[in-house]
Amino acid sequence: MLAEIITIGDEILIGQIVDTNSAWMGRELNKIGVSVKQITSVSDNAEHIVAALNEAQKRADIILLTGGLGPTKDDITKLTLSKYFNMPLRQHATTLAHVEELFRKFNRPMIDVNIKQADVPDGCTVIQNKNGTAPCMWFEVNGKIFVSMPGVPFEMMYLMEEEILPRIKNNFDLPYIVHKTILTVGQGESFLAQQIEDIEDSLPSHIKLAYLPKLGQVRLRLSAVGPDEQALKAEIDIYAQQIIERAKKYVAAEDDVPLEKAILDLMKANRLTLSTAESCTGGYISHLLTQHAGSSAVFAGGAVAYSYDLKESVLGVMHQTLAEFGAVSEQTVKEMAVGAITHFKTDYAIAVSGIAGPDGGLPGKPVGTVWIAIASKNTVVAKLFTFSNKRIQNIERSATAALTLLLNLLKQDLN
Amino acid sequence: MLAEIITIGDEILIGQIVDTNSAWMGRELNKIGVSVKQITSVSDNAEHIVAALNEAQKRADIILLTGGLGPTKDDITKLTLSKYFNMPLRQHATTLAHVEELFRKFNRPMIDVNIKQADVPDGCTVIQNKNGTAPCMWFEVNGKIFVSMPGVPFEMMYLMEEEILPRIKNNFDLPYIVHKTILTVGQGESFLAQQIEDIEDSLPSHIKLAYLPKLGQVRLRLSAVGPDEQALKAEIDIYAQQIIERAKKYVAAEDDVPLEKAILDLMKANRLTLSTAESCTGGYISHLLTQHAGSSAVFAGGAVAYSYDLKESVLGVMHQTLAEFGAVSEQTVKEMAVGAITHFKTDYAIAVSGIAGPDGGLPGKPVGTVWIAIASKNTVVAKLFTFSNKRIQNIERSATAALTLLLNLLKQDLN
Repeated sequence: MLAEIITIGDEILIGQIVDTNSAWMGRELNKIGVSVKQITSVSDNAEHIVAALNEAQKRADIILLTGGLGPTKDDITKLTLSKYFNMPLRQHATTLAHVEELFRKFNRPMIDVNIKQADVPDGCTVIQNKNGTAPCMWFEVNGKIFVSMPGVPFEMMYLMEEEILPRIKNNFDLPYIVHKTILTVGQGESFLAQQIEDIEDSLPSHIKLAYLPKLGQVRLRLSAVGPDEQALKAEIDIYAQQIIERAKKYVAAEDDVPLEKAILDLMKANRLTLSTAESCTGGYISHLLTQHAGSSAVFAGGAVAYSYDLKESVLGVMHQTLAEFGAVSEQTVKEMAVGAITHFKTDYAIAVSGIAGPDGGLPGKPVGTVWIAIASKNTVVAKLFTFSNKRIQNIERSATAALTLLLNLLKQDLN
Repeated sequence: MLAEIITIGDEILIGQIVDTNSAWMGRELNKIGVSVKQITSVSDNAEHIVAALNEAQKRADIILLTGGLGPTKDDITKLTLSKYFNMPLRQHATTLAHVEELFRKFNRPMIDVNIKQADVPDGCTVIQNKNGTAPCMWFEVNGKIFVSMPGVPFEMMYLMEEEILPRIKNNFDLPYIVHKTILTVGQGESFLAQQIEDIEDSLPSHIKLAYLPKLGQVRLRLSAVGPDEQALKAEIDIYAQQIIERAKKYVAAEDDVPLEKAILDLMKANRLTLSTAESCTGGYISHLLTQHAGSSAVFAGGAVAYSYDLKESVLGVMHQTLAEFGAVSEQTVKEMAVGAITHFKTDYAIAVSGIAGPDGGLPGKPVGTVWIAIASKNTVVAKLFTFSNKRIQNIERSATAALTLLLNLLKQDLN
């Protein structure tokens, strides 16, 4: 079963927003055995939307559209679908009542454009959008399914989870798609590929292996398609175990999780706690950790100490250390890590101090210079990194490097 | 001048990664007057890549491809282009020398697949990729330009900035595209549209207005196309000023900046400092602020205090307050904000305490309950929010709500 996603909106094409909807939809569709053949982003332009619809239905069975359903003049998806399917717009009573209810709830007066939100093409199935005023529309035409949803992520997600995915599952006899991902850290993709070449060569044709590199990490993803989910899982696990055994040294997780989640899981299983002392990463490591449910069992908290003052008062870095070696130094970052362990009473701590840029470079310490320390109750290790002159990249790379150092120390300590 | 972006990689279609490249490319292309007509994401499949190439060149003058250039077997973009353009692969000496140099630098042995990275279709222009082993390839065929770049974001960005964009600018006589964005907070898009309807109706045909809503914010984007950049800027500014005047109460920034950047700019201009005391947002607000260059002039730092202990020891919340009212309460969040002001010696502080979920709800305090406080030297205000049961959404919405509260207090104080 093939699906295509069409995202509609000028804001995507001019890059004002990043399309995060499609990745989420791709993931959820895969889980129920639907493969996404193509993702197409087009502008709020009727001709262009029609061209995309024409193309998509040549390739796919289900076409999922997001965006262009707002009440304002630039949004034309509904009108375009009405013309495309030759289904004139009519007012939909249930939708109108729902829109009126929403406006009552938020105590706002309704205006004409809000009432028009309740118009739908005559002939589609209307699916109530509990979280907004734009109704979701399901069309079945010439044996193909077209679903138009709002582009607002949480409205789309709710509709997909509660309405669209269950309907697709009920309507079709779907094959299973099983993925198994192994997260590795610290080895380049071509070397991993060489190490496991014979395993890759032995894969049957319905199982594929992909390498997904990202900032010092490589995800190895095995994907299998077939009618029997349990058999696929068992089969894919055999190959996964072979790879894990071969690349053991670099395996951070035997699952498709981010690096920080692998660390949280490992620390939780060993009842260990963590804190952070961040300067140039500015709370990013803390944010990475705390976005995961249950992180509070491991992560106690941390400090974002940009200023010298806060490094001293919150983390207990000695004034003399800062004066003598500066904030971006081995001495300071080690004191930050030990300070975090001590003040926040945790088993491990991560400390980062660097020059994220684009300005702020010092003699001998160019933009991109980052010191990272990991402290445990017994030891503190520090390492110097030299990244680029791009601020956001430096923040991301510092976080990945810090998490990798922590993982390696944990693996060592737990062995 | 029209461009299309084709991103190649199964990992995009199955949603394992979010395609952030396209938005960045769209933004950079727009700046030099190239409009992106469509973004298409296809799998690592030769037939599918060829179909996308055929379609794209019907619509666009420049086709930019990313991805599928890695050394591993799943990457087939280069081979596909070689066959598509009927240009056999040959070894490119400069590229080989560059790859060898990279391997020497990182002290790694080269293997066969690394050497193959230096093969390129005979007839393309090779552009050196300083940050990786996959060369960038520029094809001119039948009056169209095709550029194949690696999908690794920082490799692609460097190539675009240093090589591709300058070449496009030199080769074509491009029109100007001018955007002007106004960030509003606290008013729904349909009401904004009603308020400025006459201004929107008076826009000439070469100027378009779009509404981009996101979590309590609406961006109003005016876009103009034409041959004279200065004239377009002057013209678009007239309409922008009319809109700003009309919607004054809700305008947070007269520029396309995130809310936190608008706050940083406003505080910097008034020499004000800020700190944070985060519980359920776990460092996200701090991260939002610190991703911006120059944020250290305003943001001193903050604490991520997940545990009761840290709320007491780092922020000075009274033990009695936590015991009596709990961590998620008006009393605690106010003490957190005042504690941040006092301990971190800033003019303003944001404090957030809530239940991000998906678990952890309490009687009378369901998941999604969030208290936010803003303290200044004179006052502390707190507000209760009830969001959803989705953790990441709750973190994002809490951050936006906190920043909005801060902005409103700042506007009030600075008047």
